[in-house]
Amino acid sequence: MTGSIVTLGEVMALFLTADARPLGMATDFRLDVAGAEATVAIGLARLGHHAVYLGRLGDDPLGAQIVRTMRGHGVDVTGLQLVPDGPTGLLVRDAPVDRPISVRYYRSGSAAGTVCPDDIPPPLVESAALVHLTGITSALSDSAHATVLHVLRLAREAGVLVSFDPNVRLTLAPPTRWRAIFEEVVPWCDIVLTGADDARVVTDGDPAAWFLDRGAKTVVVKDGAKGAYETDGTTVTQAPARQAVVVDPVGAGDAFAAGWLGGWLRGLPPEQRLREACVVAALAIGAPGDIAGLPDDRVVQAVLAGEGDVTR
Amino acid sequence: MTGSIVTLGEVMALFLTADARPLGMATDFRLDVAGAEATVAIGLARLGHHAVYLGRLGDDPLGAQIVRTMRGHGVDVTGLQLVPDGPTGLLVRDAPVDRPISVRYYRSGSAAGTVCPDDIPPPLVESAALVHLTGITSALSDSAHATVLHVLRLAREAGVLVSFDPNVRLTLAPPTRWRAIFEEVVPWCDIVLTGADDARVVTDGDPAAWFLDRGAKTVVVKDGAKGAYETDGTTVTQAPARQAVVVDPVGAGDAFAAGWLGGWLRGLPPEQRLREACVVAALAIGAPGDIAGLPDDRVVQAVLAGEGDVTR
Amino acid sequence: MTGSIVTLGEVMALFLTADARPLGMATDFRLDVAGAEATVAIGLARLGHHAVYLGRLGDDPLGAQIVRTMRGHGVDVTGLQLVPDGPTGLLVRDAPVDRPISVRYYRSGSAAGTVCPDDIPPPLVESAALVHLTGITSALSDSAHATVLHVLRLAREAGVLVSFDPNVRLTLAPPTRWRAIFEEVVPWCDIVLTGADDARVVTDGDPAAWFLDRGAKTVVVKDGAKGAYETDGTTVTQAPARQAVVVDPVGAGDAFAAGWLGGWLRGLPPEQRLREACVVAALAIGAPGDIAGLPDDRVVQAVLAGEGDVTR
Amino acid sequence: MTGSIVTLGEVMALFLTADARPLGMATDFRLDVAGAEATVAIGLARLGHHAVYLGRLGDDPLGAQIVRTMRGHGVDVTGLQLVPDGPTGLLVRDAPVDRPISVRYYRSGSAAGTVCPDDIPPPLVESAALVHLTGITSALSDSAHATVLHVLRLAREAGVLVSFDPNVRLTLAPPTRWRAIFEEVVPWCDIVLTGADDARVVTDGDPAAWFLDRGAKTVVVKDGAKGAYETDGTTVTQAPARQAVVVDPVGAGDAFAAGWLGGWLRGLPPEQRLREACVVAALAIGAPGDIAGLPDDRVVQAVLAGEGDVTR
Amino acid sequence: MTGSIVTLGEVMALFLTADARPLGMATDFRLDVAGAEATVAIGLARLGHHAVYLGRLGDDPLGAQIVRTMRGHGVDVTGLQLVPDGPTGLLVRDAPVDRPISVRYYRSGSAAGTVCPDDIPPPLVESAALVHLTGITSALSDSAHATVLHVLRLAREAGVLVSFDPNVRLTLAPPTRWRAIFEEVVPWCDIVLTGADDARVVTDGDPAAWFLDRGAKTVVVKDGAKGAYETDGTTVTQAPARQAVVVDPVGAGDAFAAGWLGGWLRGLPPEQRLREACVVAALAIGAPGDIAGLPDDRVVQAVLAGEGDVTR
Amino acid sequence: MTGSIVTLGEVMALFLTADARPLGMATDFRLDVAGAEATVAIGLARLGHHAVYLGRLGDDPLGAQIVRTMRGHGVDVTGLQLVPDGPTGLLVRDAPVDRPISVRYYRSGSAAGTVCPDDIPPPLVESAALVHLTGITSALSDSAHATVLHVLRLAREAGVLVSFDPNVRLTLAPPTRWRAIFEEVVPWCDIVLTGADDARVVTDGDPAAWFLDRGAKTVVVKDGAKGAYETDGTTVTQAPARQAVVVDPVGAGDAFAAGWLGGWLRGLPPEQRLREACVVAALAIGAPGDIAGLPDDRVVQAVLAGEGDVTR
Ligand SMILES: Nc1ncnc2c1ncn2[C@@H]1O[C@H](COP(=O)(O)OP(=O)(O)O)[C@@H](O)[C@H]1O
Ligand SMILES: Nc1ncnc2c1ncn2[C@@H]1O[C@H](COP(=O)(O)OP(=O)(O)O)[C@@H](O)[C@H]1O
Ligand SMILES: Nc1ncnc2c1ncn2[C@@H]1O[C@H](COP(=O)(O)OP(=O)(O)O)[C@@H](O)[C@H]1O
Ligand SMILES: Nc1ncnc2c1ncn2[C@@H]1O[C@H](COP(=O)(O)OP(=O)(O)O)[C@@H](O)[C@H]1O
Ligand SMILES: Nc1ncnc2c1ncn2[C@@H]1O[C@H](COP(=O)(O)OP(=O)(O)O)[C@@H](O)[C@H]1O
Ligand SMILES: Nc1ncnc2c1ncn2[C@@H]1O[C@H](COP(=O)(O)OP(=O)(O)O)[C@@H](O)[C@H]1O
Repeated sequence: MTGSIVTLGEVMALFLTADARPLGMATDFRLDVAGAEATVAIGLARLGHHAVYLGRLGDDPLGAQIVRTMRGHGVDVTGLQLVPDGPTGLLVRDAPVDRPISVRYYRSGSAAGTVCPDDIPPPLVESAALVHLTGITSALSDSAHATVLHVLRLAREAGVLVSFDPNVRLTLAPPTRWRAIFEEVVPWCDIVLTGADDARVVTDGDPAAWFLDRGAKTVVVKDGAKGAYETDGTTVTQAPARQAVVVDPVGAGDAFAAGWLGGWLRGLPPEQRLREACVVAALAIGAPGDIAGLPDDRVVQAVLAGEGDVTR
Repeated sequence: MTGSIVTLGEVMALFLTADARPLGMATDFRLDVAGAEATVAIGLARLGHHAVYLGRLGDDPLGAQIVRTMRGHGVDVTGLQLVPDGPTGLLVRDAPVDRPISVRYYRSGSAAGTVCPDDIPPPLVESAALVHLTGITSALSDSAHATVLHVLRLAREAGVLVSFDPNVRLTLAPPTRWRAIFEEVVPWCDIVLTGADDARVVTDGDPAAWFLDRGAKTVVVKDGAKGAYETDGTTVTQAPARQAVVVDPVGAGDAFAAGWLGGWLRGLPPEQRLREACVVAALAIGAPGDIAGLPDDRVVQAVLAGEGDVTR
Repeated sequence: MTGSIVTLGEVMALFLTADARPLGMATDFRLDVAGAEATVAIGLARLGHHAVYLGRLGDDPLGAQIVRTMRGHGVDVTGLQLVPDGPTGLLVRDAPVDRPISVRYYRSGSAAGTVCPDDIPPPLVESAALVHLTGITSALSDSAHATVLHVLRLAREAGVLVSFDPNVRLTLAPPTRWRAIFEEVVPWCDIVLTGADDARVVTDGDPAAWFLDRGAKTVVVKDGAKGAYETDGTTVTQAPARQAVVVDPVGAGDAFAAGWLGGWLRGLPPEQRLREACVVAALAIGAPGDIAGLPDDRVVQAVLAGEGDVTR
Repeated sequence: MTGSIVTLGEVMALFLTADARPLGMATDFRLDVAGAEATVAIGLARLGHHAVYLGRLGDDPLGAQIVRTMRGHGVDVTGLQLVPDGPTGLLVRDAPVDRPISVRYYRSGSAAGTVCPDDIPPPLVESAALVHLTGITSALSDSAHATVLHVLRLAREAGVLVSFDPNVRLTLAPPTRWRAIFEEVVPWCDIVLTGADDARVVTDGDPAAWFLDRGAKTVVVKDGAKGAYETDGTTVTQAPARQAVVVDPVGAGDAFAAGWLGGWLRGLPPEQRLREACVVAALAIGAPGDIAGLPDDRVVQAVLAGEGDVTR
Repeated sequence: MTGSIVTLGEVMALFLTADARPLGMATDFRLDVAGAEATVAIGLARLGHHAVYLGRLGDDPLGAQIVRTMRGHGVDVTGLQLVPDGPTGLLVRDAPVDRPISVRYYRSGSAAGTVCPDDIPPPLVESAALVHLTGITSALSDSAHATVLHVLRLAREAGVLVSFDPNVRLTLAPPTRWRAIFEEVVPWCDIVLTGADDARVVTDGDPAAWFLDRGAKTVVVKDGAKGAYETDGTTVTQAPARQAVVVDPVGAGDAFAAGWLGGWLRGLPPEQRLREACVVAALAIGAPGDIAGLPDDRVVQAVLAGEGDVTR
Repeated sequence: MTGSIVTLGEVMALFLTADARPLGMATDFRLDVAGAEATVAIGLARLGHHAVYLGRLGDDPLGAQIVRTMRGHGVDVTGLQLVPDGPTGLLVRDAPVDRPISVRYYRSGSAAGTVCPDDIPPPLVESAALVHLTGITSALSDSAHATVLHVLRLAREAGVLVSFDPNVRLTLAPPTRWRAIFEEVVPWCDIVLTGADDARVVTDGDPAAWFLDRGAKTVVVKDGAKGAYETDGTTVTQAPARQAVVVDPVGAGDAFAAGWLGGWLRGLPPEQRLREACVVAALAIGAPGDIAGLPDDRVVQAVLAGEGDVTR
């Protein structure tokens, strides 16, 4: 429907607790798929866009499940490789009620971190409407960071716009490393979508200003239940979060990104794309895991139109 | 305890999602029983009334389960027939959090629609204290509609009062057909219980007036979280909804009807029967499916008395 | 790896009991995908072949799930259409231990039966290595049967080989109709794979002879726990079934067909393709549903090589 | 279809482990209904007979569930009372693979044991075709034993035949007590169905002789996987067990009794009623719990006719 | 980390409904551990204290599971005996949404009530920092009450402080008996933690005064969603409840007690120990059952510090 | 009851598929505990022995669950440390029917591999009746191997006997490394228990001879469904496997080892300890996971005595 979006990173098998028991007390788990870029890609595919996912996975049953899930949702995974060099990364997590969430990653030595510039088919990047990257990929390994830089260069040369979400994970690297990554990557980016918390790694001042100063043309700041705003340095557009009962807050920011980028690709003005992004995020946090709640466009439009709860 | 209530319609097997995942993402389902009139019948039986359910089901394992469930709850199913003419109707549905509900019906060609006037044992109707009907049955098929008219005639001849709930299902028929049904049926009815939304199919004005104009003596208007009111054209009695956390809103109106009709059968004044109806409805939406939350009278009275949460 | 296989038919949502309770007593169900041709297509895709699935599904959440599952397994569904003309077909089934299986279909009026010759993109058929069809599709509706004949003509004109499995379903049509279908369809087919029971609809004598007489070049007869044999009218090659604990026998024949056709596409001699087919079938019946047990080639080869149970 | 069968005893809530973990390691349980006489009553009702169940249950949610289950299956529970004198009895049990089963009863002080002769409506007994009793009821309490004797007297006076199953439970009483019960009760009984093991409480010799000596006219001896035989003292008729994969062996004897008594009520000759009884028992042990596997007559006849596994 | 806490009572197997269906409609249950003193002991052990649990359990699989759970959480169960004199007590309960909770106990004749003074190893009591008792144990049986008095005497002689929670259970004894217990026990106690409701059994006036008058030095009054306060007769310190979504309110008071006693043992001032107690209680009611939500100290401190929801 | 057994190694969180779907198709998982030495330790503890487990775990929720499980079963974990140096190791596995099992380990960089000689409290080893080690620990890391050698020295100096199970895991190291480990370790060992397959890593000849040649006094060779034998170089004692339906074969060898070592500690002669070992192993493979089926001594004796299936 619109040009394609290319993204890249580590998508993992998620073992999610199946009830409200916290991780230290849980016995039943459900397998799901997780990863910031994969959530954005699946979110965009569900909304009807052509999303391309690049990178590596272990050539094992969990890797096969992930490929099946992404391809099932319509993500183009022809450039995603199953390699024997390491296992598919994995995380274990709970989603308790009113209690800090516990997450443990098993991604050290995983296949995803072995991604390298040669894995990237240049035409896929060059023909895209947008490339979306996150800080996580740079923090995975040196070769993953090199791959990010390689993609940035390909995109710039081909005049393809780039969006970036810091997506800070302090278990992967210390704040200094994150700051270094941002200083290196942001100048290549046109759009930055950042969580208000993540932005605090670089500044306690105005987060938008920090990214605009380094070259971003549009900065979107997501701020949980408070909603989000975007700015091009001149105008600020604000949107309240959509009222929601939270089943599983993880992935809200990536769902929001999918909604926002989808709106941006369709040429919606700031107010509308922020509103759609808030709807997508609110629907995402009403279901367990990062993926199950991602809506298709029909559901988004029904919610925006305030349609009744049941059609029958 | 009071005279019997006779009802009639299509009761179906409900495949309900087992967690908060929306229908398009769900893998686990729980079998339940659904159908507006069946919910009213079971609701009344649980409250201690003698409810009689007429109609047809497929002579198959799902039909057998439905009979077992209804009979188990004490509904008199001696007049409900298992026939080989078609399968038991079925619906598939989710109950997601903060998201429009998806329902799909598999009732075309089902056994229930083959019901005909000869299926109705006249004495069961003639000896009843009340006959309860809905618009759905008329919309199922010509022979089902003929059966409704037949029952209305039997009731009128025997001086048995009739209550009616429009229960509009736009997947069964277009608005014009629904209006035609109401114009034909309402003049035979004493009591109308209608959802405020359903009433909008016939009028954007005062819903009670529309039904009173066509002969109803008492009209009860249910309005979701806003509560309900009833009127005989002279006095209007209002009741707020009972504060509730919504687990599954479907069936609220039928649970309300069971509560209201139960109170009416026991001779409660308007204020009290509305209050009991709101309690029954609030309890019903606190459990998954249409049936599991329907309370017995002991629970209703405990809730009305504001008894503590745990007795031990 | 080899040329593509094109198939066509009705793929349905399967509500499968989640434990050993028979359908009339079950409460927990798991959603799966079922349909003879879809099982063959997924089975081939899992084995590494390019399988193309044509036809129609309802434009609804269950249809979306089916597309996601098939696409996830790598089946090419670009020619499978989601249409608003009817719901996605559905079946409800148990898999009890030592007890007849109960199946109920909800496919009357479903979207799949509205398939018509215009739905078939000629190039997909003409470029195929093989077209696989079953009797079920012809039994669905007149337009589905017309579509089958259309595909047969396209294949013959393009010199594409055709395989056919009678797959008799007596709930869809009486034996006379099945016989009529076979008389009309078999002359267009090169390969017939038939269950020994299904063959009895046309003859109590030698099933292979019946099909060979009508033009088939190769006939494969599947006979449950007894195994299978194939013949070209001259040589008969036999293979014993692989010893197996049966978890869910449904779909064994379609899994076998996937295994056999996969071997045939790779040019394996009769003895080897029969042996692989028996392995694929035995693995399929060791898991619930028609799909979950379908192996990839690695598992097939490990089983054939008699590798130990656990590699670690 | 035939005259009614009246039975009496303690029916309990069964908490059954939901997977193969033994009781000492299990965390998930499924609620079911258990009790030797209730299994016979439900078994007969499922086979199409009019079964009447008498006795007492606690007036509590578990008692309500049991009534619902029995009534749902068509058992006449109009004479079963919910009383406030004690809780509904309960048992906790596993069904592990190849391992001794663990059962724990919580029936001391339960409502069922307070049953007394006045609870028995004489007409229900006097109009029956058969009264079925077990040793368990006599072992529950003095008043329960008095009720058994009362029913025996009512039956004899009305010329109603009596069947009896020792059903020894050594957790309820020591062997001497069981022997005393049998010496007192058997002379009132026409038919004795006994497990071979249970019979060993009274004799290591020929079990049939022991019961025939005390007045039984027909003795049926059930012997697990070896099958069963019956004798009237003159002729012995034997039947092998039906080959079966055992999912849960508990309740086999009661299922067998339902099958045998059903056949007896329909006037089947010994060979046929034994064969039906073996089929009913084999189907019962193929499903978890005592009740879920009990077949209706259609399934029994399909199995006897050796019909294929799937009809579709 | 601090001196040990000794407690005593009946710990039971809890069969808890696995979803929002009320007890009378539930089919799936999860086994857990329950008992006021056991919750306090496990709560303290999870917070890092040395908790000693005394008493009796049945020598059966449920008793073994309970021992395993308590020992697993670090409770010292060397003084807890598995005896053949009766079964392990059991309760069945639901945790419905917005509806009165149903609890049924199966503890009559259970092993726990046979506890006697000789079961208490004096050194365990004499070396403790605190003994914690509840009214329940006294209400179980005469010998259990004698054991309570024996422990009180041992504690007083050794100068060990005693805390007491009335924990009224009206199914165990009538109000008069509870009052008698309190009159006898409270004079031996230093600290009383009481639910506001429980206190109403003895006074409708100021609950703290009633207990202070009988010798308590510190009285803590827990008042559900309103929070709690404590007083030594001079100063009153108040704490609001922590805002919480209630998943299962049962056990809140015992979780609070664990938190409060843990703070007291660590020498925290009233305001801080009340605040920690409210956090522990709020976390406990966010998970199903009495135990699963009990936090370790790390979680308590993270919540008090207002740390973000996910660390990653 | 007997002297203590000390063991050492990596115990992991096991995510086990919850139904018969293979790993590549499974969505539901159950958390369990796995690890060869931990299974032996828990097996011995369940049989009533004092088992001591040494080593390291991550200081995280999965580590806490493992400690809770082991301590719950009565294993002495006072010497098992939770450290911040790495996560708790994890494995993901299925247990399909008639199909090769898939296992994936996530143990690289895990806390267990950081174990070092200083972690071993000498008195725990010196006071033991037996030290049990496996080849796995040596293959984890250099420091883990050093710890094994340290323990071997401590044991020899204190005159404590040592048993050893090769437990080859080819994902941890190549065959040459395993051979090197055995050459280094076996001379320190008195008892070797080896799977017949594992022994093939060192010899295709007589496995017992290979180990006896290197100093072992007793060699036990486990051979799956064929059973096991032991020899001291002079006498060979053989035992058939106990007939069993296999639910999950993994852990059979470790369960066997627990049974054999338990018998050896109690001074049973070869024939009897082999027979007990086969019973323990057969019970273990009848339940999912490595731990759930491990019996206590009562169950072992009941099975050996051929006691009936249900006691009630
Ligand atoms: N509690 C909530 N209620 C409603 N919407 C929310 C809530 N939390 C997050 N959202 C939505 O998700 C968006 C992103 O959430 P945020 O937590 O800022 O993302 P991130 O995961 O990147 O930190 C918010 O802008 C808002 O639209
Ligand atoms: N969110 C809610 N909270 C509390 N009560 C509700 C809620 N929704 C419905 N109810 C109760 O159920 C009754 C019927 O609901 P309504 O949605 O009007 O019925 P219908 O299903 O016929 O549309 C209302 O009058 C009210 O008492
Ligand atoms: N009980 C069984 N054990 C092992 N293999 C079986 C069993 N049942 C079927 N199969 C395999 O599946 C193949 C097809 O089975 P069949 O029942 O003949 O198919 P259909 O489903 O077409 O009737 C058989 O040839 C055999 O290889
Ligand atoms: N393993 C089995 N396989 C097949 N049928 C069985 C098996 N066990 C029991 N049955 C059937 O159930 C009947 C009663 O079983 P039995 O164990 O003797 O009953 P009880 O429960 O009274 O001891 C047997 O006669 C047989 O028909
Ligand atoms: N709904 C609630 N929300 C937040 N905290 C609660 C809630 N209910 C109970 N609590 C906490 O648990 C504590 C004890 O609760 P309460 O119900 O008084 O205990 P009890 O179980 O002894 O009656 C309260 O003081 C409060 O801190
Ligand atoms: N299929 C089986 N049936 C019965 N017992 C078995 C079976 N498989 C293993 N066992 C028992 O477990 C023991 C150890 O099994 P084995 O597979 O040799 O161990 P390992 O896991 O070390 O390879 C065997 O000696 C036997 O007693």
